[in-house]
Amino acid sequence: MLPYEHIIIINKESKIPVYRQIAISIINAIRNGTLKAGTHLPSSRELAKTLGVHRKTVIAGYEELDAQDWIMIVPRKHVAVSEHIPLLKPQKWSEHNILTPYENDLDIPFRIIEENTLGKNLISYPDIIIDDGHPDVRLSPIDDLLKTYRSLTSKKYAIKNANIGTTQGTLKLREELVNYLSVTRGLNISVDNILITHGAQMSIYLSAQLLLRHSSNIIVGKPNYPVANKTFEETEAKIIEVNVDEKGIDTDAIERICKRKKIDAVYVIPHHHYPTTVTLSVERRIKLLELSKQFLFAIIEDDYDYDYHYTSSPYLPLASSNHNGNVIYIGSFSKILDPALRMGFMVAPKNFIEQCTAFRKIIDVGGDGYMQSALATLIKEDELKRHLKKSKKCYHERRDFLDVLLKEKLGKYVSYTLPTGGMAIWVKLNPKFSIARLVANTQFKIIRWDLEQNAFRFGFASMNEAELIQAVDALKSSLEAGSKHSQ
Amino acid sequence: MLPYEHIIIINKESKIPVYRQIAISIINAIRNGTLKAGTHLPSSRELAKTLGVHRKTVIAGYEELDAQDWIMIVPRKHVAVSEHIPLLKPQKWSEHNILTPYENDLDIPFRIIEENTLGKNLISYPDIIIDDGHPDVRLSPIDDLLKTYRSLTSKKYAIKNANIGTTQGTLKLREELVNYLSVTRGLNISVDNILITHGAQMSIYLSAQLLLRHSSNIIVGKPNYPVANKTFEETEAKIIEVNVDEKGIDTDAIERICKRKKIDAVYVIPHHHYPTTVTLSVERRIKLLELSKQFLFAIIEDDYDYDYHYTSSPYLPLASSNHNGNVIYIGSFSKILDPALRMGFMVAPKNFIEQCTAFRKIIDVGGDGYMQSALATLIKEDELKRHLKKSKKCYHERRDFLDVLLKEKLGKYVSYTLPTGGMAIWVKLNPKFSIARLVANTQFKIIRWDLEQNAFRFGFASMNEAELIQAVDALKSSLEAGSKHSQ
Repeated sequence: MLPYEHIIIINKESKIPVYRQIAISIINAIRNGTLKAGTHLPSSRELAKTLGVHRKTVIAGYEELDAQDWIMIVPRKHVAVSEHIPLLKPQKWSEHNILTPYENDLDIPFRIIEENTLGKNLISYPDIIIDDGHPDVRLSPIDDLLKTYRSLTSKKYAIKNANIGTTQGTLKLREELVNYLSVTRGLNISVDNILITHGAQMSIYLSAQLLLRHSSNIIVGKPNYPVANKTFEETEAKIIEVNVDEKGIDTDAIERICKRKKIDAVYVIPHHHYPTTVTLSVERRIKLLELSKQFLFAIIEDDYDYDYHYTSSPYLPLASSNHNGNVIYIGSFSKILDPALRMGFMVAPKNFIEQCTAFRKIIDVGGDGYMQSALATLIKEDELKRHLKKSKKCYHERRDFLDVLLKEKLGKYVSYTLPTGGMAIWVKLNPKFSIARLVANTQFKIIRWDLEQNAFRFGFASMNEAELIQAVDALKSSLEAGSKHSQ
Repeated sequence: MLPYEHIIIINKESKIPVYRQIAISIINAIRNGTLKAGTHLPSSRELAKTLGVHRKTVIAGYEELDAQDWIMIVPRKHVAVSEHIPLLKPQKWSEHNILTPYENDLDIPFRIIEENTLGKNLISYPDIIIDDGHPDVRLSPIDDLLKTYRSLTSKKYAIKNANIGTTQGTLKLREELVNYLSVTRGLNISVDNILITHGAQMSIYLSAQLLLRHSSNIIVGKPNYPVANKTFEETEAKIIEVNVDEKGIDTDAIERICKRKKIDAVYVIPHHHYPTTVTLSVERRIKLLELSKQFLFAIIEDDYDYDYHYTSSPYLPLASSNHNGNVIYIGSFSKILDPALRMGFMVAPKNFIEQCTAFRKIIDVGGDGYMQSALATLIKEDELKRHLKKSKKCYHERRDFLDVLLKEKLGKYVSYTLPTGGMAIWVKLNPKFSIARLVANTQFKIIRWDLEQNAFRFGFASMNEAELIQAVDALKSSLEAGSKHSQ
């Protein structure tokens, strides 16, 4: 007899019922060729004795295997492995391999995206995280949102078709957005011009996938939001970098490039460019729109930071003016609600939205219809507006508080231009201090920095005053230590 | 003086404050070249008179424009368009164009995915929808889920880092899944083998994007889940169709193809193949795993319907056995919770999961961390298991109820094999009735049908007994009318 005590592995601690463990073990043994078609299995009495379990347990396992055609039970005669099992090449017995097949690597060639470091150090993050401009979710109206969400799903008659229309976004949310985007951004659009996405990044991805291919050219700022660059690289398009100075992306440089070669798209972050936080100036905005008409390229306007502007109203989006419909406008609710919620939108001409919707369907079918409807209610009842007003005031104070702190405590180490809005300050280290050394410090974690500019993003929105003080003090001691070290 | 009453359009019904409407109109006029650099604007008094608004309103508009550098205000002298405005080519004045730029099409070339019909007839759907196998969300534990969700977000200290790790899925949910997938599916995996996705479709998309390119070959069943085929087409890989009969996909045919050319992947739906609902037989399962080892191709195992099996336990996934780690296993919670929630998972070797995670980051950053944690709690507390048991019983009864109904009322029109699980019956019309005619009926809406097989999917899970009777009666009168018509 085969060594069934080794073929059938029973773990009484496991939540899997023992009869299923027996069945699983026998299936695995059949599958790896240990048990072949027609092989007689021990009687239930024998096997029960070998394994030290009750006979009824073995019978239940055999019945399960019979129901699934792995074995044939000939009553009062024998139990045998099904005759339909194909002949398998004998394999070296390896208990290890059977139990943990997923310990192996996938050995079929596949595309490599990047050296992935996600999630690796996340558990051991220090207490102080200097993010790149996150909202403070402690201020989020998420509780109101969920209250509405629950009241929606409790209406049993209403939830039946909650998934209808979620690929483009529920009609209810798109209708509210038509009004909301008109009031807040001067956009003149209809529900057909809107696609609800899982945040701004998905809008960038969809635009890139539809507009670009290996023969395309796209212009981006230098430096730029690195995830956007990666998204464009995915399409194999050529990425052309144009300097971003204190007035935003250099539109004269764009013009010179357009005269030399066909440009398919320009990606801009007109409010609070990432990472440097500058705002695109009026003359460059107009110039960019003109160039778009003259050289026929799409403008991908990533306006993720529109809602937070402190000293005046924000500049109206490029998408709000006369642009012949060549501006793809990208916005997000993640900065208002919570980055974990993943809600954003794209505004574009109807023919483009239609294709993005079709494409999005094969990516992930659609979004959460309840969440969309809950957000629509919040917008309709001006709850979102009230929240925005409150959080804007709070972030404005935090920006100013950090401004004072930086001047007082880090004055001799850093310089910066106070941004007119947004959630982060682009802090440049003075040349004799090194950003590489600063980010190597393990007492705090800086999310976004730039070696070339010797600078980092100091997200102030997510921290209250005590936390800002703590973060600045931590930076200060690190810089002081560095300064002593270099003396 | 320019005709400011035509340049500045004020709509007092609008929610946009009038001063902002004035500012927006002037910006648009500057942008389209109507107002040029240096042009003097009327005094606030004059303009107020022309427009019939209060002078303070005009002043507020001018201040807004000044703050954004569109105009220069020289106190007690004049107001003029900024000198920084670049010279613009004069444009034909078109009020229409300025107000509704998004009425135009995007006239930059972009990729066309398909003739998009999404959302077009959705509003006018009839009451009777015969879906292709949706769960009944009225049975969903969504309320429990949201209760947990709210209790998570109300813990202010806990929500600060809710977005950490959401690209791969929160650690908490992945830990619960390691146990859950072991108990329910015999998978032996660690948290590194799991990626949480926005439903099964996203797992198909990610696998396709990473495994396939224009020179690749992928084998799929015929007929197959059409959205999967579209997803593979996206990669420009060659799609090779292999017949699906009553035992599932024909593995002998796969072997013949593998001997002729390099196959990179095989896509299978082993439980309740879509659309025909057949289950892949034991011998073919083993054969497929053998072929995968011999010819080194990845198996994309879409097991979206695993949880609903009525007469015995479901077959263990291909992924549960000895497969050298070449099986990419795809599952979903959408069929348990609610299709609107978009929660699913992929199980694969760590090296593949890492790349999928990196790629997923550029698609949409990640999922909803709160929802993931809420689901983890439901799993941990066996709430999901209890719900599954309840809904399985209910769907089992509905399947049997529909079986009786079809036999009694549609016996002479249709034939079918009762599936052992899942949420739909694949109903074939007898040859003298036409599926094309049936789906053209406007009294009900059939979601999925196949002209070649003259058949449709009758999703029974989402309907209670009264609804099933109503749907069958509607089909009956349509078929009766068709039969009279053809006499």
